[in-house]
Amino acid sequence: MRIVNLRKENWQEDPELSRIKTRGQGLENKYATSVLEIIENVRKYGDTAVFGYAKKFDRVELTPENVRVSEKEIEEAFEKVEPEVIDAIKLAVDRVRKFHEHQKENSYFVTEPGMVLGQKVIPLESAGIYVPGGKASYPSSVIMNAVPAKVAGVEKVVMVTPAIESLEVNPYSLVAAKLSGVDKIYRVGGAHGVAAIAFGTASIPKVDKIVGPGNIYVALAKKFLFGQVDIDMVAGPSEILVIADETANPEWVAIDLLSQAEHDELAGAFLVTHDEKIARAVVEEITRKLRTLKRKEIAQKSIENFGTVFLTESIYHSCEVANIVAPEHLEVATAEPFALLDLIKNAGAIFLGHYTCESLGDYVLGPNHVLPTGGSARFFSPLGVYDFVKRSSVLYVSRDGFEKISSATALLADVEGLEAHGLAARVRMGSRIKVSEKENVKG
Amino acid sequence: MRIVNLRKENWQEDPELSRIKTRGQGLENKYATSVLEIIENVRKYGDTAVFGYAKKFDRVELTPENVRVSEKEIEEAFEKVEPEVIDAIKLAVDRVRKFHEHQKENSYFVTEPGMVLGQKVIPLESAGIYVPGGKASYPSSVIMNAVPAKVAGVEKVVMVTPAIESLEVNPYSLVAAKLSGVDKIYRVGGAHGVAAIAFGTASIPKVDKIVGPGNIYVALAKKFLFGQVDIDMVAGPSEILVIADETANPEWVAIDLLSQAEHDELAGAFLVTHDEKIARAVVEEITRKLRTLKRKEIAQKSIENFGTVFLTESIYHSCEVANIVAPEHLEVATAEPFALLDLIKNAGAIFLGHYTCESLGDYVLGPNHVLPTGGSARFFSPLGVYDFVKRSSVLYVSRDGFEKISSATALLADVEGLEAHGLAARVRMGSRIKVSEKENVKG
Repeated sequence: MRIVNLRKENWQEDPELSRIKTRGQGLENKYATSVLEIIENVRKYGDTAVFGYAKKFDRVELTPENVRVSEKEIEEAFEKVEPEVIDAIKLAVDRVRKFHEHQKENSYFVTEPGMVLGQKVIPLESAGIYVPGGKASYPSSVIMNAVPAKVAGVEKVVMVTPAIESLEVNPYSLVAAKLSGVDKIYRVGGAHGVAAIAFGTASIPKVDKIVGPGNIYVALAKKFLFGQVDIDMVAGPSEILVIADETANPEWVAIDLLSQAEHDELAGAFLVTHDEKIARAVVEEITRKLRTLKRKEIAQKSIENFGTVFLTESIYHSCEVANIVAPEHLEVATAEPFALLDLIKNAGAIFLGHYTCESLGDYVLGPNHVLPTGGSARFFSPLGVYDFVKRSSVLYVSRDGFEKISSATALLADVEGLEAHGLAARVRMGSRIKVSEKENVKG
Repeated sequence: MRIVNLRKENWQEDPELSRIKTRGQGLENKYATSVLEIIENVRKYGDTAVFGYAKKFDRVELTPENVRVSEKEIEEAFEKVEPEVIDAIKLAVDRVRKFHEHQKENSYFVTEPGMVLGQKVIPLESAGIYVPGGKASYPSSVIMNAVPAKVAGVEKVVMVTPAIESLEVNPYSLVAAKLSGVDKIYRVGGAHGVAAIAFGTASIPKVDKIVGPGNIYVALAKKFLFGQVDIDMVAGPSEILVIADETANPEWVAIDLLSQAEHDELAGAFLVTHDEKIARAVVEEITRKLRTLKRKEIAQKSIENFGTVFLTESIYHSCEVANIVAPEHLEVATAEPFALLDLIKNAGAIFLGHYTCESLGDYVLGPNHVLPTGGSARFFSPLGVYDFVKRSSVLYVSRDGFEKISSATALLADVEGLEAHGLAARVRMGSRIKVSEKENVKG
């Protein structure tokens, strides 16, 4: 883990900081052509294409009869999963639901004489949740994607997850899906699985929005289908930035940095501190812990690629650096973390204080773990209830209300050269009688 | 304008309704390669690439000195624009601002013993507004994109609009920009203009989000840059659906349908009614008005392509059809429009009653005119203040709060095979002393 000194003029231009700042520049587009072809084939040939790709890529024989996971399989999953894990999943679902309840939005209406204007908030009718599959188990991903959708009021929550080499779907994911309120589960994934729920096929339903993480094919498929359906965000490798002062515990900071590094060779683990002793102690702890960690090969490569300690002038300087990096997870491991909250502008989730380790937020604490990566916390938000609703503007004017704004409307329509727009106001200006009294209306 | 009878069994499968339902299936990707190349060159070569493309595509010589519109040019624009138009723009800005003030969101925090959880709402630092340029004039587009950004609290609102064949920028757009609070204006557009504000160049600033309509190159550039920056939505041709009953005025309905048809040959104009007389009267009116309309060639083609009257069983059936089409603009031209509001699920903006013609909403009424098209009202919302903020989750646990959830966290980390995630909880479980009292922390 390299230590970079930012105690200098023009620290903003430090090459390592610049490299990290631009880490998220866009998705690899080299698979674009094949993903576009998959999408087009699924759109044209439906199930035939989907099942063909499942055979080719995932080596499973899907049919209209077996593609959907049955209620019986879900019941069996409950028998396979340990009772204490079921309890932990229930605790997580419950806490995540309670936190997300606060994100519900209300419609609003405002009135003035002759006018009612407002905004209706309406749940999406359906949503699709992509869960990475195969033998890996991601119950937390199921919970974090499905619960906000159900809290929003989405009636049809559909989960897709690839069956790979065998028809079996991970039982932990099935239990999490059932307890999170998922309505239907299909054992299909990849770009073809994403396209299937974007267009709908004979045996797989179409949805309005697709959320959830996946590999590069899944990410590109979501991106190319954006507009046909809504998508959540373009997610990259996971990352953490820890701001530490002299009260931080180096061992705790080190393990928190490693808990991102173990995800992915391209994951980011950044420490920002004005305290040199802490900096050195954390680097030592990381070296020590890397020796024994089960996923040490991934974590080691990740630390080599994106493991950096930035040495700053002060805790305020550290906050500035954090805002430039705009990390997915930001831990504030300082004596008075709340005092810094107002200074943090760009971060997916902010973990305050020494006990609030990032992994609490991954599973049980309540806020969503689907967070913007690669610096996109500058403009993206955590997944939330707001992702599963849409808004419609509502406009009403009476004859009197109409008169307040009709001339300005007609004038601006003229300026833009849109005659019929202006005429729509002008034909109504001419009419002083009530609409329903007009002869030609009643025929 | 064709009349299609939906008074039949399986009306949902009517071929014309199906054609209209799937009208928005994705963007043309045939320009993808050239747009990707433009983006890559702008990323690598900055101003040199941007100015090169401006010369090639827009036939203007841009330099670092002239690319930004000067304060003097903006002042001169105010002298060129008619005082009554300035007043109309002021009225629009004022009403749009007032409506959007209601969309501001607050941060929230909830507490339980040993825990504070919440969500901070933070304005984006910067936003870029794309305004189509050349000789056309779109002051309303400037207002509708810039005002919500300023209401949200975005500090740097940057507008880009192409200068085509001459350095001049439309004075109406400049006046609207100034009155809407736009901070800087650059006379550059196309895919290269979009890429310029996505990455930033020596003379053009980088922004966090890009909004606003444009041609196919602009739309593709936004789509490909999604993730590098945020974007608003993928906008297609404009469209209107009118639900009418026997109280509707055929002339008014006809001109409202034409006010979308005049936008674009691919614009949509749909009438849905259970009243055959109204249906026929509107078709006649459209034929009559098409003879004299200035933009009749565009409108005529649009009506041929996407001009349809659907005949329904009842007003409730009409609402069902509207929800399937999910139009950008929905007019409810009925005797009791508010009674239907709850039945409308999918529409960008809902115009209630005979006087509320769509063009009022385009300019002055207050709600945003940037609305989801092509059926994407199923999942997209009008542009709003919520598009110019981001959210950060906030999490804090004390030692006591930690104990409530640490075991479940460690267990679920085990289930997912993420050892360091579990260790992050476990190293803290072992420590019963206060962090700041630990010897090794103070070095």
